[in-house]
Amino acid sequence: MPVGSCRVPFSELARRLEAVQSGLRAEGITAALVVQNVDLFYLTGSIQEGHLLVPAVGEPLYLVRRDVARARAESSLQRVEALESLRRLPAVLAREGVDLEGTLGLELDVLPVNVFRRYEALFPGMRLVDCSGVIRLVRSVKSAFELDVLRRCAAQAEVVMREASAVLREGMTEIELSAHLEAVARRSGHQGIVRFRAFGQEMLLVHAFAGEDAAVGSYMDAPLGGRGLTPAVAQGAGRRHIGRHEPVVVDFAGAVDGYLVDQTRVLSLGPLPRELADAHEACLRIQDAVVARVRPGAVCGDLYAAAVEQAEVMGYGDHFMGARPNQVGFIGHGVGLEIDEPPYLARGARGVLVEGNVFALEPKLVFPGWGAVGVENTWVVTASGAERITLGCDHVWESPAD
Amino acid sequence: MPVGSCRVPFSELARRLEAVQSGLRAEGITAALVVQNVDLFYLTGSIQEGHLLVPAVGEPLYLVRRDVARARAESSLQRVEALESLRRLPAVLAREGVDLEGTLGLELDVLPVNVFRRYEALFPGMRLVDCSGVIRLVRSVKSAFELDVLRRCAAQAEVVMREASAVLREGMTEIELSAHLEAVARRSGHQGIVRFRAFGQEMLLVHAFAGEDAAVGSYMDAPLGGRGLTPAVAQGAGRRHIGRHEPVVVDFAGAVDGYLVDQTRVLSLGPLPRELADAHEACLRIQDAVVARVRPGAVCGDLYAAAVEQAEVMGYGDHFMGARPNQVGFIGHGVGLEIDEPPYLARGARGVLVEGNVFALEPKLVFPGWGAVGVENTWVVTASGAERITLGCDHVWESPAD
Repeated sequence: MPVGSCRVPFSELARRLEAVQSGLRAEGITAALVVQNVDLFYLTGSIQEGHLLVPAVGEPLYLVRRDVARARAESSLQRVEALESLRRLPAVLAREGVDLEGTLGLELDVLPVNVFRRYEALFPGMRLVDCSGVIRLVRSVKSAFELDVLRRCAAQAEVVMREASAVLREGMTEIELSAHLEAVARRSGHQGIVRFRAFGQEMLLVHAFAGEDAAVGSYMDAPLGGRGLTPAVAQGAGRRHIGRHEPVVVDFAGAVDGYLVDQTRVLSLGPLPRELADAHEACLRIQDAVVARVRPGAVCGDLYAAAVEQAEVMGYGDHFMGARPNQVGFIGHGVGLEIDEPPYLARGARGVLVEGNVFALEPKLVFPGWGAVGVENTWVVTASGAERITLGCDHVWESPAD
Repeated sequence: MPVGSCRVPFSELARRLEAVQSGLRAEGITAALVVQNVDLFYLTGSIQEGHLLVPAVGEPLYLVRRDVARARAESSLQRVEALESLRRLPAVLAREGVDLEGTLGLELDVLPVNVFRRYEALFPGMRLVDCSGVIRLVRSVKSAFELDVLRRCAAQAEVVMREASAVLREGMTEIELSAHLEAVARRSGHQGIVRFRAFGQEMLLVHAFAGEDAAVGSYMDAPLGGRGLTPAVAQGAGRRHIGRHEPVVVDFAGAVDGYLVDQTRVLSLGPLPRELADAHEACLRIQDAVVARVRPGAVCGDLYAAAVEQAEVMGYGDHFMGARPNQVGFIGHGVGLEIDEPPYLARGARGVLVEGNVFALEPKLVFPGWGAVGVENTWVVTASGAERITLGCDHVWESPAD
């Protein structure tokens, strides 16, 4: 079977739908209309233009404007129906037994106001509430099926990292390296996009940057952003020529069949200066310290605090997770169908880890005008701790300088 | 100067801001808070995490959370200020003389409901209205500066098309072709993303597909979508091996410094079957017929109707802009910083073309189980007609079959 061709089995969809329905009932939501691409994929195995009706009790129904034939082929749900116009929605819901005086769940964290107002006009008797929390909570616990896909993502990421190390040469530009790795990723089945949920966030396929260009500030909600080719997309590789003895950061999300794993490695041509090599080792120690605390029941904000404390004890407080004043308030983030999922290993986060959570942990140190170092791996929470999904060596990948 | 490095000059930003302010006054809007990436770029020359305050009268102010230093370096606006927290916004607006009992414009076509509600809570005395129409209307008329950037996008697209023709070989897969072209594009300065405004729409860098895979139905608001690698991203190149005597569609948006031009060419190894070659020629005739009608004052819906009528007269009614029942209701769309801008050359569209509008015109014919043909070029409306921005030959690019 080629990478990226699997159909999500019916049993998997049924389990997910039951969990969402249970969440809807707990929140007193009569039914949810799911329209966002990623949530649709999670619950139908398909992203066609449509709505998934999920009643709190009863059989879900995938209503598709286009392409109906493709939705039927791609989704293993049995109930897929054509819906030519939004205006027919109230009649369909009534036919399905949904109380049109009840509470309707919509994904209000992503639904634009003007789109929302169309639903308001269609369902004047219903109370419209946010159901995204219910769906995202279910999505944050990965099944054995999902872990298998995530492991295929990790294998792809390792191919890309090894290729980066193989082709790295003094004088090549960041964008030459990045373009090459993007092509390798695509030939290895990368789906071509990395999905963010937060408004205004966007992400290139590969982040590859070196030296002081890895340490510039960024609009991204990430410790590193890169200079990019243009202020219009101010992230990722720029035109800088890569030199010897400087950290080359490759941050890449393996992406297969909708899923993502996040991974960062530091490469170099010849040894790094002692201070940067030490800083990289410090990131590995912070990674170890956090991972040692991972278990079901661990409080996310405590993991963040432990990492910051260790960075400060080692004297890296001003450089950890960005340089002042651009530090981000997290050391890790859930990954799955989106790159910004719960759990958030963030300042003050009261969320508690549960078995099956998958997160990227990315202790990084930034030295403006000089460079950035650090590591990122993706982990799954097991019954007793953490198991690593991403592959390969965490130390600096040093190639000969000549 | 390398591709993709230009700073938007102050005079250009000033002209855009004056036009938006004039639109705000006409709509009775006291001030707009611009937060969407593309609109921010249009009015500041920069996309950092921030707000642009545009009062209907007075000096705009770019309020940036991060990265402030970068916003100052990238934007040629003089007034760039740090804003650490959203909560400070009301005080800043009051200081700037904005009436907090007035009308506040927000981009309600893209702003998620939950984000919108934060602004509602911050500005309880203000009426919050949609200002996206004002901004998008100004954006739809391109300046000489913007046309220069669009011509650089066109040059990039032509490089990619020529490369496609040069590397096309029997037996190569769609994804091999696509990955190669994506890398060529990136090395030629492609910014790495193609921005859509509409909710739920997303676009890969290159659409390259062949034979019957070019004719599958799609969720995209486009005549062609492609099979893709996975139902999770059901568009673009798939794993099909490209054969002889079949249309190979390459649809590519050149993208430099934020701007896009959209272009499609059909390639083939050896001649196409007569019916498909004839269909391609029919698309060229439809293109000619529409372009002959383009001038300031032309009604967009009339251009659409003329194209459909000509397709029907030639016997292609069931295949034009998709195969039944998946036909899209447009033959062209504005392009600029987003791929889905006004003007819309669409069924019933009452909009009227004005000088400086830039649009992609894409008459295409789809034959399920067989293939797709057609052409796409990007045009600017001049004082007396249309001028083509995209380059190169519209006919089928035939390479030797052996």
